Amino acid sequence: MGKKNKGFVQNITAQSEDFSRWYTDVIKMTDLVDYSDVKGCMVIKPYGYGMWELIQQEMDARFKATGHKNAYFPLLIPESLLQKEADHVEGFAPEVAWVTHGGNEELAERLCIRPTSETIVCSMYSKWIKSYRDLPMLLNQWCNVVRWEKSTRPFLRTSEFLWQEGHTAHATANEAQEETEKMIEVYREFAHNVLAIPVLTGQKSEKEKFAGAMHTYTMEAMMLDGKALQMGTSHNLGDHFAKAFDIQYLSSEGKQEYAHQSSWGTSTRMIGGVIMVHGDERGLKLPPKIAPTQIVVVPVAAHKEGVTEKAREIYEELKAAGIRVDIDERDQSPGWKFNEWEMKGVPIRLEIGPRDIESGNVVLARRDGFEKEVVSMGGLEKTVKDMLEDIHKSMLASALKFREEKTVSANTFFELEEGIKNNCFVKALWCNERSCEDEIKEKSGATTRCIPFGQDDPTSGVCVHCGKPAKKNMYFAKAY
Amino acid sequence: MGKKNKGFVQNITAQSEDFSRWYTDVIKMTDLVDYSDVKGCMVIKPYGYGMWELIQQEMDARFKATGHKNAYFPLLIPESLLQKEADHVEGFAPEVAWVTHGGNEELAERLCIRPTSETIVCSMYSKWIKSYRDLPMLLNQWCNVVRWEKSTRPFLRTSEFLWQEGHTAHATANEAQEETEKMIEVYREFAHNVLAIPVLTGQKSEKEKFAGAMHTYTMEAMMLDGKALQMGTSHNLGDHFAKAFDIQYLSSEGKQEYAHQSSWGTSTRMIGGVIMVHGDERGLKLPPKIAPTQIVVVPVAAHKEGVTEKAREIYEELKAAGIRVDIDERDQSPGWKFNEWEMKGVPIRLEIGPRDIESGNVVLARRDGFEKEVVSMGGLEKTVKDMLEDIHKSMLASALKFREEKTVSANTFFELEEGIKNNCFVKALWCNERSCEDEIKEKSGATTRCIPFGQDDPTSGVCVHCGKPAKKNMYFAKAY
Repeated sequence: MGKKNKGFVQNITAQSEDFSRWYTDVIKMTDLVDYSDVKGCMVIKPYGYGMWELIQQEMDARFKATGHKNAYFPLLIPESLLQKEADHVEGFAPEVAWVTHGGNEELAERLCIRPTSETIVCSMYSKWIKSYRDLPMLLNQWCNVVRWEKSTRPFLRTSEFLWQEGHTAHATANEAQEETEKMIEVYREFAHNVLAIPVLTGQKSEKEKFAGAMHTYTMEAMMLDGKALQMGTSHNLGDHFAKAFDIQYLSSEGKQEYAHQSSWGTSTRMIGGVIMVHGDERGLKLPPKIAPTQIVVVPVAAHKEGVTEKAREIYEELKAAGIRVDIDERDQSPGWKFNEWEMKGVPIRLEIGPRDIESGNVVLARRDGFEKEVVSMGGLEKTVKDMLEDIHKSMLASALKFREEKTVSANTFFELEEGIKNNCFVKALWCNERSCEDEIKEKSGATTRCIPFGQDDPTSGVCVHCGKPAKKNMYFAKAY
Repeated sequence: MGKKNKGFVQNITAQSEDFSRWYTDVIKMTDLVDYSDVKGCMVIKPYGYGMWELIQQEMDARFKATGHKNAYFPLLIPESLLQKEADHVEGFAPEVAWVTHGGNEELAERLCIRPTSETIVCSMYSKWIKSYRDLPMLLNQWCNVVRWEKSTRPFLRTSEFLWQEGHTAHATANEAQEETEKMIEVYREFAHNVLAIPVLTGQKSEKEKFAGAMHTYTMEAMMLDGKALQMGTSHNLGDHFAKAFDIQYLSSEGKQEYAHQSSWGTSTRMIGGVIMVHGDERGLKLPPKIAPTQIVVVPVAAHKEGVTEKAREIYEELKAAGIRVDIDERDQSPGWKFNEWEMKGVPIRLEIGPRDIESGNVVLARRDGFEKEVVSMGGLEKTVKDMLEDIHKSMLASALKFREEKTVSANTFFELEEGIKNNCFVKALWCNERSCEDEIKEKSGATTRCIPFGQDDPTSGVCVHCGKPAKKNMYFAKAY
């Protein structure tokens, strides 16, 4: 890296030195978020919120294409409602914020700010669902939730965060299971094709499943420090909530039956994943599909005749083609601007100066591999769109290669411990017992991440830790 | 109305009998909202939320076109922050919900759920704004807010509601004033061109202005019962908040200056306005631009050969053209379906039966005036788009005509009282004094709605009530 590049980078801790500080430096330097006056609550600044808007658009289209509709349920949940499903309240009560007063009056019953909305949704479903004709009910909501976290980090774990939560009800257990698996697959496809993040999908252990669920499925991504980030989950709630909230319907055979339910959610946490999967020493590296700015036009020697005009012309042309383009006409030097846009992770930089104009070309500099390419102004729109697509593919491939290189199989607990020490995902046979899971975590720091889809449970072999007969294939890793 | 139409309508109270019950009947019968277990909080069901999504899209595009970006600020505001601007806390403290506990612990300082976000935004602006180069700062957020209301009605006044709130900071008082007026004009244009609601815009009296603002501007619409609904407001905050929160910048002349600010908001309340401006005895009548379903295809004699196939073909054709179309293949009779879709306010119903197919035509039935038109299947896409545009225009014209007929000028207080009794907007000269405003309200039930834009203040004449010299043109009305 030349000296001129050091302006911003010297303020960013090196990844190799302290990954956690690198993360914090990057999100502050690139104006994604700021800390607020309320402990653990972040302000999402326009650049960060722009990513969230694009995530929402892409996801929402997928939800609608799979038959879901959006609705909105209240923020506040009466304490008595939260308590209806025993496992659920046990899981969430310790971390909810309680409203006790409205104006100057004390409330007769405390209200919690939703940490998730199963209880309030189910209380409505018990009114709405009367007949098999009302099923399936396929709703989603985009909203904020609050979980009173002791230790917080922007995007990854905050007291308030933005998310979507799907809540569905079905006539049969099979349909609920199908929906649960369908939605984790929607999440996986989204992670690959939009975030350029390869994720592992599979089932959570009993310990790690959602409070009140029968089964939880997850998508897990590997960050550049080798840790896992749970990026989204989908829960088969069985009839647990239906029984607690009395959600019954008259079947086509005229019998009263309990509904079977699913819920599934992803949040602003995914932005933290994007940062930690793709970022590098120069800062952010954004996947083109959620980059608020996909290409920035930087005029070089802008004082020379015709440069500004041509730069603006190109800007308008790309904008009209539906590309998210910005033009940087600030006073700073081109070098300063190059560095800033690199830090902000904009996928392509377009440089245009007097000589380019003479030759009818422009320079495209890619953020992913820093290659520069001289391309003709003719057909620029297509060139840029193809390059954005290629950047997406190359970022996905690179993240996949990294994960594969950092994934090991362990036959012994020593190998598991070594793998974890080396910041790897460790795949191993496991007994599926809670006490063993707790011991593995205590000794190695690793938690169970997921029982991968598409692989048969082992019929022979022993648990990597306790030596009892193996029941499951399991990925272990340290996690956020 | 024929007998067959009475199925739904008999469950809807007539507007003339009890407008308020008509409203409540309609929103429940059409599945817009439901009441939740939390007093004063509503659940917005998919049909109602679909309208909100379309409102958001249309508005958001306008905000972005005027240079604004979206961001997200925390839900919770420390009590000390709320108290920083004296008028503001006085206005809002009586109606906020207070969080006192996080998990099992009592908080050191109470947090209120945002009733509006000026205070938390300003606390960030005081960090972010350092130089004239940081200005203007033009942000907006889409979020939920809570105001602990004693008496609530779905959409119109609820303890929690969804809204957008713009918050801007500028170098000069002039720029803040320009922004404030620009945004009320954005709202007006939106109301006319999207909601088909003609609104009056103008300034609020000192009594009615926003807590902490220097000036408040409003858009006011007339409901079918003659009452006014405040549909959106834009506030020039002057430097009140900048002084309270220390938002200072270094000017280009090297001086420390206070910023000048605006804020502006609209909410789900607008949906209540749409219902009460356009609805009729049969239920909802939705303006095409925010109708979740713009046209519904109803096969007639669907058992006859080719009907279902042709209906589906038309459905696909309209859908591919970007029209929001639904097809109703349920078991019920066509007549039953006609009534239901009329109640739900879908702008156009497309009927297609064996004879239509033979003749190459379909029937389009308009919700606005109930006219039926036989049109050719050829060029249907354009026919439908033109008809939707025409329905919009006719709904706007009809609402405007209604308001104009129900607006009177009063020279005497007797005339004002008569006008209010007749459910009219009353325009009159006014002294601009708070005590007079209070007395007018006490005697007539009318409040000041707005001092209309584009009209010079009176230089002669006397106040319609107290007889003192007139200072303002004012619209008076009963209001929601």
